[in-house]
Amino acid sequence: MITSTVMGSGSWGTAFAMILADAGGKVAVWGINPEVTEAINAGHGNPVYHPGIPLPATVRATTDAAEGLTDASIVVLAVPAQVLRANLQRWGSQIPGEAVVVSLMKGIELGSTLRMSEVIAECTGVAPERIAVVSGPNLAREIVQRQPAATVIACSDPTNAEFVQRATITAYFRPYTSADVAGAEIGGSVKNVIALASGMAAGLGFGENSQAALITRGLAEMTRLGVALGADERTFSGLAGVGDLIATCSSPLSRNRTFGENLGKGMTLDEVEAVTSQTSEGVKSCQPILDLANRLGVDMPITAEVVQVVHHGLTPRQAVANLMSRSAKAE
Amino acid sequence: MITSTVMGSGSWGTAFAMILADAGGKVAVWGINPEVTEAINAGHGNPVYHPGIPLPATVRATTDAAEGLTDASIVVLAVPAQVLRANLQRWGSQIPGEAVVVSLMKGIELGSTLRMSEVIAECTGVAPERIAVVSGPNLAREIVQRQPAATVIACSDPTNAEFVQRATITAYFRPYTSADVAGAEIGGSVKNVIALASGMAAGLGFGENSQAALITRGLAEMTRLGVALGADERTFSGLAGVGDLIATCSSPLSRNRTFGENLGKGMTLDEVEAVTSQTSEGVKSCQPILDLANRLGVDMPITAEVVQVVHHGLTPRQAVANLMSRSAKAE
Repeated sequence: MITSTVMGSGSWGTAFAMILADAGGKVAVWGINPEVTEAINAGHGNPVYHPGIPLPATVRATTDAAEGLTDASIVVLAVPAQVLRANLQRWGSQIPGEAVVVSLMKGIELGSTLRMSEVIAECTGVAPERIAVVSGPNLAREIVQRQPAATVIACSDPTNAEFVQRATITAYFRPYTSADVAGAEIGGSVKNVIALASGMAAGLGFGENSQAALITRGLAEMTRLGVALGADERTFSGLAGVGDLIATCSSPLSRNRTFGENLGKGMTLDEVEAVTSQTSEGVKSCQPILDLANRLGVDMPITAEVVQVVHHGLTPRQAVANLMSRSAKAE
Repeated sequence: MITSTVMGSGSWGTAFAMILADAGGKVAVWGINPEVTEAINAGHGNPVYHPGIPLPATVRATTDAAEGLTDASIVVLAVPAQVLRANLQRWGSQIPGEAVVVSLMKGIELGSTLRMSEVIAECTGVAPERIAVVSGPNLAREIVQRQPAATVIACSDPTNAEFVQRATITAYFRPYTSADVAGAEIGGSVKNVIALASGMAAGLGFGENSQAALITRGLAEMTRLGVALGADERTFSGLAGVGDLIATCSSPLSRNRTFGENLGKGMTLDEVEAVTSQTSEGVKSCQPILDLANRLGVDMPITAEVVQVVHHGLTPRQAVANLMSRSAKAE
């Protein structure tokens, strides 16, 4: 039996703990909210993110990071992207020396413009070949209903990717392995920004034609950034690229899409944040993604417009109009 | 002023006539239904497909093909794919010798497994460099509301692609040129089959994760077929590939998606056909697409399952289960 620890009791971390347990593993979930950990230990599941959905009995929870990490052969990191470094500074040294570290996080660190796997390597000294990334069309609220889903597990060492694959394969969850860590991370990060733009367009009343064009252009700018970072272009035609992008831009369950839709309907950023219980990673990551693109000389017009809306007061209507009016040319 | 004739007064043909007129052209629409042509000439638009939406005054309609084709410098073909050959045998010889022929049709001819541009060349003798294809995320009911949309105009001769681009560019419709005729046609044809599968999954209650995975796999099999036919792989990452696929699979306005959804909900093929006023091109094209794939040795598992449902009585539930249970491997 594989022993795993999920560091973070948010929506996706909790769903991933369910997958690990359903795949036959023994799972500890670490979280900072004692109400959540107590509810999980009492057999009630996570009342904040997945109310009414119990977790398997092989999932236990703790607020003690060091205790939670004991004996883990897989350590899953599922904290918000922008606080990963601060978290690792507290308990990163407790990660067992032989564990495979799995990142569920989607984002680029503000300031450093590092990807999550790079922050993990830098803060913990874990070798890159022991760091895997999970990315794909995986809306957590469907996963906890055990609806069929597929994902990509990317790791530079195929043995470690296959180890995580074995630890997560269930009747409803199908993980595919890949060696393209950078591609999976860029796909997972940029999709949140494109979903904000797609949501804005929806909120403004634009239909499927406009949104499909926007998503297609979003895929192109995501691919350009990934390729500039050494990713495999084909990753973006797969589950961790276009697959995740479609699910995130299409679903009313997507927090980034919903956030953008509220902006498109005319709410201010503060108003949207006030009504949103979960993190909009796209709002936090759009600036570091644009910084990274600028540093690499990559053109990301949709991301640039989202940054203008989020940080510089541009109206969503003007942002979408700017994107739609780019001149006609060869594709 | 560019003079165009649209052969076919269906949903997309009528919308395209609006685009040509809004772009400043003089347009004739040929149709076989005198009620439709009379309504258009009376200023009421197309009462069958776009009730309540008038067409510009520069659009006239006729039931006389030869008369409609007189003086056209652009001839737009917009009849159902499987009756194109029969139509061209009647009036193909009337197409003016210097006209650029534009295909709006999506499908592969049953029996011959020819693409629409190939049927046009074979039946009329028009040189391939004068045949252009329009393909992209262009749901007709959004176009006639003049919502923003983008498309691809593919022609082996860039001068002719640019001529059609000039004839169709408006504030709401943005055509991009391409040289990849085969890619645009394969994208436009296969997407209807994938939309049937996506609709079936939705009708069965599968969520966004499953559908995003299905669309991603659909894109992969569409790309494999296109590349085997000499298409440019990049076309499938663009508006005529993934863009059109997303719009067709996401929209409740898509007839193929809706057709599949009804099948997924348990209706028989006959029952669905009885409640559907428009052609489901995917139902008609799935067999010739599979024949073409088999001839080229291309694996198209989603298309194969759709053929089983449409022609051999497999239940949508079993078809979707077959697709979801394919074994985990490297992506």
